[in-house]
Amino acid sequence: MRPVNVGVIGLGTVGAGTVDLLARNSAEIARRGGRNIRVTQAAVRDMSRARDCEVSDIHLTDEPATITTNPEIDVVLELMGGEDEAYEVVSTALRNGKHVVTANKALIATRGNELFEQASQAGLVIAFEAAVAGGIPVIKVVRESLAGNRIDGLAGILNGTCNFILTQIHEQGLDYDAVLTEAQRLGYAEADPYFDIGGIDAAHKLTILASVAFGIPLDFDSVYIEGIEQLRYQDIIYADELGYRIKHLGIARSDSGHLDLRVHPCLIEKDQLLANVSGVMNAVRIRGDAVGDSLLYGAGAGAKPTASAVVGDLVDVVRTLTSDPGNRVPHLAFQPQQLADPRMRPITEISCAHYLRLTVRDRPGVLADVTRILGEHQVSIRVISQKGFGDEQGVVPVVIVTHDAKEADIANATKKIETLEANAAPVVRVRVETPD
Amino acid sequence: MRPVNVGVIGLGTVGAGTVDLLARNSAEIARRGGRNIRVTQAAVRDMSRARDCEVSDIHLTDEPATITTNPEIDVVLELMGGEDEAYEVVSTALRNGKHVVTANKALIATRGNELFEQASQAGLVIAFEAAVAGGIPVIKVVRESLAGNRIDGLAGILNGTCNFILTQIHEQGLDYDAVLTEAQRLGYAEADPYFDIGGIDAAHKLTILASVAFGIPLDFDSVYIEGIEQLRYQDIIYADELGYRIKHLGIARSDSGHLDLRVHPCLIEKDQLLANVSGVMNAVRIRGDAVGDSLLYGAGAGAKPTASAVVGDLVDVVRTLTSDPGNRVPHLAFQPQQLADPRMRPITEISCAHYLRLTVRDRPGVLADVTRILGEHQVSIRVISQKGFGDEQGVVPVVIVTHDAKEADIANATKKIETLEANAAPVVRVRVETPD
Repeated sequence: MRPVNVGVIGLGTVGAGTVDLLARNSAEIARRGGRNIRVTQAAVRDMSRARDCEVSDIHLTDEPATITTNPEIDVVLELMGGEDEAYEVVSTALRNGKHVVTANKALIATRGNELFEQASQAGLVIAFEAAVAGGIPVIKVVRESLAGNRIDGLAGILNGTCNFILTQIHEQGLDYDAVLTEAQRLGYAEADPYFDIGGIDAAHKLTILASVAFGIPLDFDSVYIEGIEQLRYQDIIYADELGYRIKHLGIARSDSGHLDLRVHPCLIEKDQLLANVSGVMNAVRIRGDAVGDSLLYGAGAGAKPTASAVVGDLVDVVRTLTSDPGNRVPHLAFQPQQLADPRMRPITEISCAHYLRLTVRDRPGVLADVTRILGEHQVSIRVISQKGFGDEQGVVPVVIVTHDAKEADIANATKKIETLEANAAPVVRVRVETPD
Repeated sequence: MRPVNVGVIGLGTVGAGTVDLLARNSAEIARRGGRNIRVTQAAVRDMSRARDCEVSDIHLTDEPATITTNPEIDVVLELMGGEDEAYEVVSTALRNGKHVVTANKALIATRGNELFEQASQAGLVIAFEAAVAGGIPVIKVVRESLAGNRIDGLAGILNGTCNFILTQIHEQGLDYDAVLTEAQRLGYAEADPYFDIGGIDAAHKLTILASVAFGIPLDFDSVYIEGIEQLRYQDIIYADELGYRIKHLGIARSDSGHLDLRVHPCLIEKDQLLANVSGVMNAVRIRGDAVGDSLLYGAGAGAKPTASAVVGDLVDVVRTLTSDPGNRVPHLAFQPQQLADPRMRPITEISCAHYLRLTVRDRPGVLADVTRILGEHQVSIRVISQKGFGDEQGVVPVVIVTHDAKEADIANATKKIETLEANAAPVVRVRVETPD
C-alpha cells in the first residue's frame, strides 16, 4: 500500500517534535499502522530560520495553501497555533478533501462547531487529542472507552504553567512573582503569561472536554474563569496546615440536567491523587456512572508529549483512509506478521534494590555473619536495622535495604544466611521498585 | 439503520452488569454510537436461577451454541470466564462470522494467539479491554493513543484483591490471614484466593499488556510470578518507616532489546502516585519515549467498571460493522444531530466550602464582626484561625474554612467584610474541591 503523505503547517516546538517523532519511530509506527507515513511538505513562517528537526527530505514553503490545496497530500497537521489564520488553514484543507490533525485548543474551543460541521459534511475527520492535556489521551478515553457511561463530572489540572507555579511556591517557599520569573526563564511560562495564569488556556481545554463528556456544542463563553494571580505563599502554607493543597482546576459537572463549567484555584485534600500531581504535569479525574472514579495522568505540554498525541491521532486517521478489515486496529497493537521475538530476560538477571527481613537469635556476631555473607555475594547494604529486643526465645527481626544487586546474588546470599545457626525463620525478601 | 443484535454468554456479575448498563444508558449509547444496541439472547448455566438484571426481553438458553451459531446475532459477548469452554464459545462465534467482546484474561493470555489468528483470517474483531484492569482503558491507550511511541516499560497494580489486602494490613494493623478472611467476606477475594494472591491473575493481565506494548506474541509462560503470601504486618510497617509502601506489581521492561516480565511485591517510595493507589483500585504507569511517564487509574474489577469496558469495546465493534464516514467516532463523541442543550448553571448558584484569608487590624471585636457577617449570609464556619500577632501596622491574617455555602452568599459576605473599618486588604477566596 502506498505511503500516506502528510503536510505539516508550522515547525515550531510541536511541529518539529512531531516531524522528529515520525522519523525516529517510523519502523514502530509502520508496524502498528500497517502503512508508512511520510512528511513531504511543511509550511514555516520564516524560510531562513534553522530548524529543530531534520528537514532534508521535506519540501519547505512559507505559503500554507501550497500544502492545503496539494492533491498529493492526504492529511494536514495544523501545528501553527493562533486562531484566524489557523481557521483558514483547516477550512481550506477540508475544502480540498484532506483530513486534519490539530493541537490548537483555542481554535477548537472557539470555532470547532463550524469546523466539525464542515468536516462532517465532507466525510472528513478533524482529530484534536493534542489540544487537551498534551500527551494524556483524555479525548479518546472519554469519547470511545467510556462510551457506555453517563459522565457525571470531571476535574482536571489542565495548565502546566499554573501547576508548576503553585508547586514551586510550595516547595521553594518563594512568592508568586519570583516563581513566575523562574517559570519564564525555564520556558514553562510565556513572556505574556496571561493566557496560562489567567485561566484562559485551561478554559479552552475544559470547553472541549465538557463537549465530549456531555454531548453539547462547544461553548467557551459559558465557562466561569479565575486564574491564580491572587494566591500568595501564605495561602499555600495555611492550606497545607489545614490538610489541603491548592491546585488550579477545570471542573465540569452535570447535576439534575444542569451543567456547570468553571476554572479556578481549589483546595484539595492531600490524600487525593489530584493533590499529588506536581510541577508541569497534568491530570484529569473523570467520574462515569459505570466506571466510577478514574484518573489519567501525564505530561500536559512540551514537544514530545504533544507529538505523541498528534501521531496517535495521525495513526487513527490513517486507519480511516481505507476501510478493509486489514486496516483496523491490530489485536496486539502491531500487525500480526510484524510481531517481534525479543530475548526474555530471566528473573535471575534482574538487578534491583531489595528489602530483606531476617529473623535471628539475638546474640553477638550474628550481624557480622550476615553482613559478611552479603558482602561475599556483592550485595552492598544501604540500611540495616535490628527491630526491638527479642521475644522470649531471644528472636529478633533484622531489616536490611540493599543497594542494587543481581537477583542471583541476593538469592544465593539469602540461602546462605538461612543456613546460619542463629537464623530462626525463612528470610522475607521484597524487591524495591524505582521508576528508573 | 437496524439495531445491532448482541448475544451474551454468561449472566454472572459481569454479564448481568453489562446487560444492565446497556439498558440503563441505551439513549446515551445510541447518541454516541449512532445505532441502537439490543441484547436479544443470553446463555446461562442454570435456567432456574434468579437474575441480577432485567431479562424480560432477552431469550435465555443454557446452550451457548444457540447464540454463537444464530445468524441473527452480530456480536457475541463472552462473559462466562474459564478457559476450555470459553475457547470453544469464542472459536464457534468466529467460525460463524461474529465479532467477539470478552472480559476473559486467562483465555486471552493463554490462547489469544490462536484466537486472534482465527479472527484475522475471518476479518473479525476480538475486543478484550475488559480483560485487563477492569474499567481502566489501558489496552486502547497503549494500542492507539501511544501508537507513536516506543514503549520502554510499564508497571501496574493489576490485582484489586492483593491491593485491598496490603492496604488493609497497613490501615487496620491486622495480619494477613485476618485481612484475607475479611476480603472473602466482602466478596473481594474468592473462596480459593490462589489465582489472586498467588499472582496468577496479575500475570495473565501483564502478559496481555506486554504484548500490546512491545508487539510480541502472548507468552504467559515467560512471566516470573510471586504472590503476596510471605508478607506480614511488620514488613509493611518497616517499609513505612523506611519511606516506602508495599504494592503487588506487574512489571514489563524493555532494555537494549531484552524484555523482562514479572509479577511480585515491591517497595515503592511514598511520593510515587502508584504508592497512593489504595484498596481495590488498579493503576498502570506507562513510559513511552515520546509521552514520558503517564498513569491510568481506576476501578480494576466489579460489575459496573468491567461492564463499562465491555460496552466501550462493543461500541467500537459496532462502528466496524459499517465503514461509511457517518459511522466513525463523532468529533464531539455524540452524533452531531444528537448534541444536547442543557441549562448552564451560573457560578452564583454553585455551592461549596471556601477558604478565606482576611487581612485585618488586630483589635477587639473584629472576629465578632466577621463571624456575624458570615452568619447573616448563611455561611457557617468550620475552622477560624488568626495567624501570628500582627506586623508593625497591627495587621494580621485570619484564615477561615467554611462549610458548603452558596457562591452568591459567600461573595456578598466577602464584600461586606471588606467594608469593615478594620479590614486592611481584599479578602482572598479559594473554593474547596471535593470529589463527590
